[in-house]
Amino acid sequence: MLRVSHDELLNALLRVLLKLGFTEERGRRCAQLFAGTTCDGIYSHGLNRFPRFVRTIQNGLVDVHAQPKFVQSYGSLERWDGRSGPGNLNAWQSMERAIALARGNGIGCVALANTNHWMRGGTYGWQAADAGVIGICWTNTLPNLPPWGASDPRIGNNPLVIAVPRSAGHVVLDTAMSQFSYGALASSRAKGELLPVDGGFDTRGRLTRDPGEIEKSSRPLPIGYWKGSGLALMLDLLGGILSGGQVTYQIPADPERESRLSQVFLALDPSSMSGKEKTEEIANQVIAHFQSSGHGKGERVRYPGERVLKTRAENMRLGIPVDPSVWEQVQEM
Amino acid sequence: MLRVSHDELLNALLRVLLKLGFTEERGRRCAQLFAGTTCDGIYSHGLNRFPRFVRTIQNGLVDVHAQPKFVQSYGSLERWDGRSGPGNLNAWQSMERAIALARGNGIGCVALANTNHWMRGGTYGWQAADAGVIGICWTNTLPNLPPWGASDPRIGNNPLVIAVPRSAGHVVLDTAMSQFSYGALASSRAKGELLPVDGGFDTRGRLTRDPGEIEKSSRPLPIGYWKGSGLALMLDLLGGILSGGQVTYQIPADPERESRLSQVFLALDPSSMSGKEKTEEIANQVIAHFQSSGHGKGERVRYPGERVLKTRAENMRLGIPVDPSVWEQVQEM
Repeated sequence: MLRVSHDELLNALLRVLLKLGFTEERGRRCAQLFAGTTCDGIYSHGLNRFPRFVRTIQNGLVDVHAQPKFVQSYGSLERWDGRSGPGNLNAWQSMERAIALARGNGIGCVALANTNHWMRGGTYGWQAADAGVIGICWTNTLPNLPPWGASDPRIGNNPLVIAVPRSAGHVVLDTAMSQFSYGALASSRAKGELLPVDGGFDTRGRLTRDPGEIEKSSRPLPIGYWKGSGLALMLDLLGGILSGGQVTYQIPADPERESRLSQVFLALDPSSMSGKEKTEEIANQVIAHFQSSGHGKGERVRYPGERVLKTRAENMRLGIPVDPSVWEQVQEM
Repeated sequence: MLRVSHDELLNALLRVLLKLGFTEERGRRCAQLFAGTTCDGIYSHGLNRFPRFVRTIQNGLVDVHAQPKFVQSYGSLERWDGRSGPGNLNAWQSMERAIALARGNGIGCVALANTNHWMRGGTYGWQAADAGVIGICWTNTLPNLPPWGASDPRIGNNPLVIAVPRSAGHVVLDTAMSQFSYGALASSRAKGELLPVDGGFDTRGRLTRDPGEIEKSSRPLPIGYWKGSGLALMLDLLGGILSGGQVTYQIPADPERESRLSQVFLALDPSSMSGKEKTEEIANQVIAHFQSSGHGKGERVRYPGERVLKTRAENMRLGIPVDPSVWEQVQEM
């Protein structure tokens, strides 16, 4: 396995971003977000996603210089225009603004229109938790999921992130509304594996664990069948209504053309209520109780975010595993 | 089928509540909430739940006179103490307060500790939408769901409600974090039916559609397996941290003793951003697109809340179907 250090990865990405016209400051932040995601073990949205990110700049979907522009506000609810800037920088700045609003007002909400794919959503949960606040955010996406009872993809898999700060390790949930991403389907198919549970329908409309059959039918399953279908719809509605931006059906269905997404960033400052110690105490007790759940021979019960911390520590120590062909591709950019 | 009019049901419930010591005003609101839920077709949390609600008053779990007490606030984030009052009245008042905060500040959040079962969660979503605002609320519950990978129930099924106002019919999602409630399992078992999809594990740890087997193992499935398990954990954490109240593991596991729950009520006023017309337009377009999804021979795709409106209209016209034995029981109270 090829491993590179965090800084080596960061500098390689930064070099490419500077070549693409990023300023030093924005390029460094963008490279940090990609390197951090890769270091956290979310390879699909880290280094492996970088070449596609570069293509979206080259084909004009992403404007490297565009920064979110304030549109209007009402109390601690604000609307911003992402102006087709880099999705991860836009999302980062929006969560920073939501955190600032929460510091002054207990709670803050930034709705962002006209932005691009935020890469790993969990990043903005970790960001909020690192700042000591609760973070909740979600994005809409291109139509890639059929509503329950339908066969054509009309809703997005709309990732939802919820983060709770904790000294012993933040609790960060980062979950899409589909049971498996297309990336996960492709990866299982390549390994010749079946999915651990039903992941969608085959072309004859039967539930299946065969990833290739689901890719053929374009009918992945929403989490909880009708429940995730409804939840995905609501997240899209909220994103469109609050930001005034596009909703899923208006977003091009081609992943290479996905653009002008709507996102919502909420921050709540629990320390404004009962102080950091009490928050920590509650979180620690809940997590301890969750982890000690009874089980059979299987793995220990993991809380959301636990594996990320373990992988992060390991990759900082040993170097970050990289796909040799992607790594080579980036170095030749 | 026995049907009674909405007013007949409301008055029958009100009579019992007055006998239990409710004031006229609070008794009427409480009876309205139960009658409305029944009229909306959510029989399990309407009339059929009423005898158990009465028992919780008789056994001292619910104090009919207790009203939520303001504890502290920071900006538009407030903490209230439910003081073991009736869960539906407490929740109603909390959402009213969140709506008022949103009117002045774009967004408002009320975290409520020490409350009781709110009956149908969707009620407070409809309440927010009727007021023209977006409503988001959730509650924790007794431990009734094993975390993914575990066999003992340590998380709650923590219902989550999201509501978007719309003149043509609000969009209201009301979804627990378990794929099927224990009520739904019992109902399927009584009819000798299998569940439409896997609903949990049998006592040998195999996924099953047999509701009786899941009741035996006490291992219902979270929606989306590991995903709903994580989501349920986060909702509990947020409820406990924001309200300063109990988290699931501290709540008695006996449904008859379930008490001192923590709930969160969020309201966002979209009209403060782009006006009612624009909000309506977005919602109408998204729903129209969702409903027209392609499908095979199955039912038409329904949006969250659609069936409630249909049932409500039908029950207002024909009378509300009641279980004869429960109806008799209430009349004898």
